[in-house]
Amino acid sequence: MIIDAHGHYTTVPPGLRVFRALQISNMGRPKKGAVNISDDEIRESLEKGQIRLLDERGVDVMIFSPMASAMGHHFGSARVSRHWTEVNNDLIHRVCRLYPDRFVGICSLPQSPGVSPKECIEELERCITELGFVGCNLNPDPSGGYWTDPPLGDDWWYPLYEKLQALDATVMMHASATCNPAFHTTGSHYLNVDSTAFLQLLESRVLQDFPRLKIIISHGGGNVPYQAARYRALCLMNKWEPFEEFIKRLYFDTTVYSPEAMDLLVRTVGVDNVLFASEMLGGVTIVDPKTGRFFDDNRPCLEGLAGLDAEDRQKIYEHNARRAYPRLGPLLDGAAARTARRA
Amino acid sequence: MIIDAHGHYTTVPPGLRVFRALQISNMGRPKKGAVNISDDEIRESLEKGQIRLLDERGVDVMIFSPMASAMGHHFGSARVSRHWTEVNNDLIHRVCRLYPDRFVGICSLPQSPGVSPKECIEELERCITELGFVGCNLNPDPSGGYWTDPPLGDDWWYPLYEKLQALDATVMMHASATCNPAFHTTGSHYLNVDSTAFLQLLESRVLQDFPRLKIIISHGGGNVPYQAARYRALCLMNKWEPFEEFIKRLYFDTTVYSPEAMDLLVRTVGVDNVLFASEMLGGVTIVDPKTGRFFDDNRPCLEGLAGLDAEDRQKIYEHNARRAYPRLGPLLDGAAARTARRA
Repeated sequence: MIIDAHGHYTTVPPGLRVFRALQISNMGRPKKGAVNISDDEIRESLEKGQIRLLDERGVDVMIFSPMASAMGHHFGSARVSRHWTEVNNDLIHRVCRLYPDRFVGICSLPQSPGVSPKECIEELERCITELGFVGCNLNPDPSGGYWTDPPLGDDWWYPLYEKLQALDATVMMHASATCNPAFHTTGSHYLNVDSTAFLQLLESRVLQDFPRLKIIISHGGGNVPYQAARYRALCLMNKWEPFEEFIKRLYFDTTVYSPEAMDLLVRTVGVDNVLFASEMLGGVTIVDPKTGRFFDDNRPCLEGLAGLDAEDRQKIYEHNARRAYPRLGPLLDGAAARTARRA
Repeated sequence: MIIDAHGHYTTVPPGLRVFRALQISNMGRPKKGAVNISDDEIRESLEKGQIRLLDERGVDVMIFSPMASAMGHHFGSARVSRHWTEVNNDLIHRVCRLYPDRFVGICSLPQSPGVSPKECIEELERCITELGFVGCNLNPDPSGGYWTDPPLGDDWWYPLYEKLQALDATVMMHASATCNPAFHTTGSHYLNVDSTAFLQLLESRVLQDFPRLKIIISHGGGNVPYQAARYRALCLMNKWEPFEEFIKRLYFDTTVYSPEAMDLLVRTVGVDNVLFASEMLGGVTIVDPKTGRFFDDNRPCLEGLAGLDAEDRQKIYEHNARRAYPRLGPLLDGAAARTARRA
């Protein structure tokens, strides 16, 4: 089985954008309102998009979450963020019900700058226990580029970690859009957030205090494999846990799109801590003239890596995802049983 | 000749810290005051530190600038920043006069959040034309982690670029300390600033508008070589100048401290656009237990790179620095002539 551990519902039907646009009109008196999207619209949005590409690329299952940049935690009040997040998570749930063998949900959280992450617990619990999701995206900077909330090691975040661990739910660190003109959303902000989250965790006690908490750093870890020597030195200078031990507590995805970068990633963090992922349809939806393939068609990068045998690759394609997402295995095995019954 | 293109005067005598401490006491009525540091104190601070290490490591010349994290552009008013910057630049000048064959100066600029970079031109001109410096450090985020100033592509910065180009002075992008608890100064803020500066320039017209401007991105470019495929895709998607052409307009230093990272750097940006540098005494002043050498003793990483011949290495050690710093050659050749006369 091949699992793509990082996909967003970027091809949403227009009804969702209509809902969002009305949130601006109603900022002063937020109300949730309805989303008008039919099942046929959902099917069309996926069968022309993610499902077609999964089929073409021989990928069985995608771990699927709402649009990341469009979550826009910086926009409006906590109530605006809650309504928008619920609507997006409900839509992911509809996708997973329509295609239970192809998509597994992870939710967004109704974060808002300056608002305690405690306020996200109710929606997290709903998504995990009622909607059958396996984890959530967490935005380390809900301000969208001004970094006004405490770092991830602060006990500000601890109630959320506690609930995540209690639910066996996994957290993927992933920014939303930036509203700071200094940054480019997918080009600099996403990667800065990944790297910053890594170091916030490295200098914290989070993974000592929540030893069963599963954390994924997106986009190949931002700069982590390339700057590993600097991190190693900082660990030694500050008497933090050694880098080589700490990275084994985390997972990193393969959304780096070149064989050289994927090689450095796997050699730095090891074959047990990498999850295959494409982030499609995401930040790099264009053909690479060097290869003639879409950048996010990155299975060939993994297939071509020297020094990996079939077992190593299967870890990256499947087994590591099952470890990183404790709730994933039962879902996948249920889907497999359904397929077997149909055959 | 071997040139280390990135060193900071981190071993300053205590008199400089006394000056800085008094700036806090006098914040309401900033006055410049005097710095009490003798030539003997300067000699001692360097002969035990940078000069000893340059000798041990076989490096001839260091391009030397004030302490980076301690510049603290976020602290106090523009006048406080000006006094502090002038004092630091004067100290670098004293170093270069005491050791004209070993150190070449680059200055800091009296930046202050929200204050036009025009206000830095006078000090830049003094350092280049009167003190004989070859360039400056530029902090893309004088707020120290809140990113409140316009991006580098904005015409906010253009008067400074114009003066830099007119003076044949080189600019090294380099952050100062962060005052935002989200970041670690040398671990995440520095690298985020490098990567963010790269993308700000990539999506700007700066290097079209100032074609002779020489720009160096510190710390191996932050994440640039590792995330090159993402940048390549963004260039194609946004119809920016192709990545492969754009990186040839910039220089990157080798302060990445591992053979794997240095290899990826050189292969990504090419042997003509890399400057050998250690950043010592800087962010990684500890022995690497894997090698038994200090992390910043990184000449062996370069010496060991496969695929480089002696000519390539000499580009990285010397010739690229001479191209990146147009004012460097005449200084070095003058120093060589002095040495020859003495011999």
